Amino acid sequence: MIIVKIGGGKEINIEAIIEDLAGITEKYVIVHGANALRDKLARDLGQPKQVLTSVKGYTSVYSDEKLLDVMMMTYAGLRNKRIVELCQRHGIDAVGLSGLDGRMVRGKRNKGIRVYQGKKLKIIRDFSGKPVSVNAPLLRLLLDNGYVPILTVPIIDEQRTAINTENDDVVRVLQQALQAETVINLIEAPGFLEDRNDAASLIKNIPSSELASRENQVEGRMKRKMLAVRKLFEQGATKVVISDGRSDHPVRDAMAGKGTVIG
Amino acid sequence: MIIVKIGGGKEINIEAIIEDLAGITEKYVIVHGANALRDKLARDLGQPKQVLTSVKGYTSVYSDEKLLDVMMMTYAGLRNKRIVELCQRHGIDAVGLSGLDGRMVRGKRNKGIRVYQGKKLKIIRDFSGKPVSVNAPLLRLLLDNGYVPILTVPIIDEQRTAINTENDDVVRVLQQALQAETVINLIEAPGFLEDRNDAASLIKNIPSSELASRENQVEGRMKRKMLAVRKLFEQGATKVVISDGRSDHPVRDAMAGKGTVIG
Repeated sequence: MIIVKIGGGKEINIEAIIEDLAGITEKYVIVHGANALRDKLARDLGQPKQVLTSVKGYTSVYSDEKLLDVMMMTYAGLRNKRIVELCQRHGIDAVGLSGLDGRMVRGKRNKGIRVYQGKKLKIIRDFSGKPVSVNAPLLRLLLDNGYVPILTVPIIDEQRTAINTENDDVVRVLQQALQAETVINLIEAPGFLEDRNDAASLIKNIPSSELASRENQVEGRMKRKMLAVRKLFEQGATKVVISDGRSDHPVRDAMAGKGTVIG
Repeated sequence: MIIVKIGGGKEINIEAIIEDLAGITEKYVIVHGANALRDKLARDLGQPKQVLTSVKGYTSVYSDEKLLDVMMMTYAGLRNKRIVELCQRHGIDAVGLSGLDGRMVRGKRNKGIRVYQGKKLKIIRDFSGKPVSVNAPLLRLLLDNGYVPILTVPIIDEQRTAINTENDDVVRVLQQALQAETVINLIEAPGFLEDRNDAASLIKNIPSSELASRENQVEGRMKRKMLAVRKLFEQGATKVVISDGRSDHPVRDAMAGKGTVIG
C-alpha cells in the first residue's frame, strides 16, 4: 500500500502524476492539497488569507467559516473533481472524498491557537484542528471494490463540524490505519533542501533516526513537515520519499529513489 | 426507496430538509442543485452566465470549461459538502459524490445545441450532455453499508470528461436504476402552479396520464421539468411529489401530500 500526497502548489504537474499512477499495480490512496487555488479564490473574492503564527513558531491559516467555504470550493470541489476526472480518463476508478464524507477523517477541533498580537498573548479559536482517525472500513470497502480514494480537507470534528487541518496530519492518520509501507510526498521542490534557496543542496537520504535533530534545524512550515514525517516512522512506515511534483514523471522518479529518501 | 431532489435556489430551507430526513426510516438518495451559488460565484469572478435557448425552446446554461470549474466549486464543493456536514450533524452518514466519482453518473455529451443567433442558425458545442446510466453497484455498496449518497453534477461523458447536465435528468437515470417508488422534488414554489405568478393556483393532483398535455401548456425550464416527470412514470415511478422546499418541514409536508402530487 502506498499513500501519495500531492501538494497544492500551482506548479505541480498533476497530469504527469496521474499518468504515472495509471501504470502502478500496487494499491494506493491519494491525499491532495489545493493551497494555490484556495489563495487565488480567496483573493478573487476579496478575502485574502490571514496566517497565524503560534507561540511555538508553527504557522497556520486562520480558518473562519468563510475560509472553510473557500476550502470546500477549491479542495473538495475544483481540485478534487478535476483530479478524479483526470484519473477516470486514465482508467483509474477514482472516488473523491473530503474528510466529511462518511466521516472519512475525524478530528478534534483546536481549543485555540496561542498567538502574540504585538506583545499581547491572545487565544484565537477558528475552525481548525487535528485529525484523530479515519473511517478505515469505508476506505477498505472502496479499495476492495476497485476504487481509488482521493482524499482532501476539510475534515469533521467531534461536534460534526467541518474543520481545516494540515494534509500532512491527514497522511499520518491514514498511514496509521492502512499501515502503508511507503509514503510519497510530491512537492514544489526537488526534495528536502539543506538551503531552501539552493536546489543543489538536496539531501538525498535521511536515516529516520536523524529526523528529530533535522526538525530542530528548520522553521515554520518545514518544521511541521519534518515532525509529520517523524510521526509516520513512529507508526511503522518504512519509507518516505519527498520528491519533485513538477517533473515529467513525479511518481516514477519517487519510486526510483529520486528526491529525498527517508528510511 | 425515495429519491429526494433538492433545488439549488437560495430560499431552499436546507436545514429543515435534513432535519426531516433524519426522522425517516426508509432508504433514500439525495440529488441536489446549487444554481444560486453557481450564479453568485460566476458573477463574483466576473464570468456571468450565458443562457442558450435551443430552436425547440429549451433553455440551458452555456457550459464552457470555466463554468464547469465554477460548478465543481459550488455544486460538488461548497453545496455538497455543507449538505454532508449538515447530514452528519443530524446523524445521517452521508457521502457526497459528483457524477465523476466512481463514474457515478455516466452521460453522453451533446453534439451541439442548435440556437438562433439573430436569424442565423448556429450549432454551439459546450460541456453539457444527457445522463445515460448510474453506477448502481457503487450506490448499492454505499446504501447496503448504511451510507446515504448525496449526488450532484457534473457527470462524466463517454470520453471521461466532466459535463454539465440537468439534475432532473440525473433523477431520471437514478430512478431507473433504483426503481424508487417515490420521488420528492423540493423547489422554491408551493408545487406546480397553473399561473406561475399566483401561489394560490397550485395544482394539487395531476394524474400521470395528463402529463403529456400539461407539458404542452408550459414553456422553457418548466417544460423540461414536466418532460422529466413524465419519463419517471414511463420508468415505473408510482408517485412524484413537487413540494415547497422553503417551508419549515419540506419533506414531512411532501410525504403528507402537500404540494403537487402526481401519480
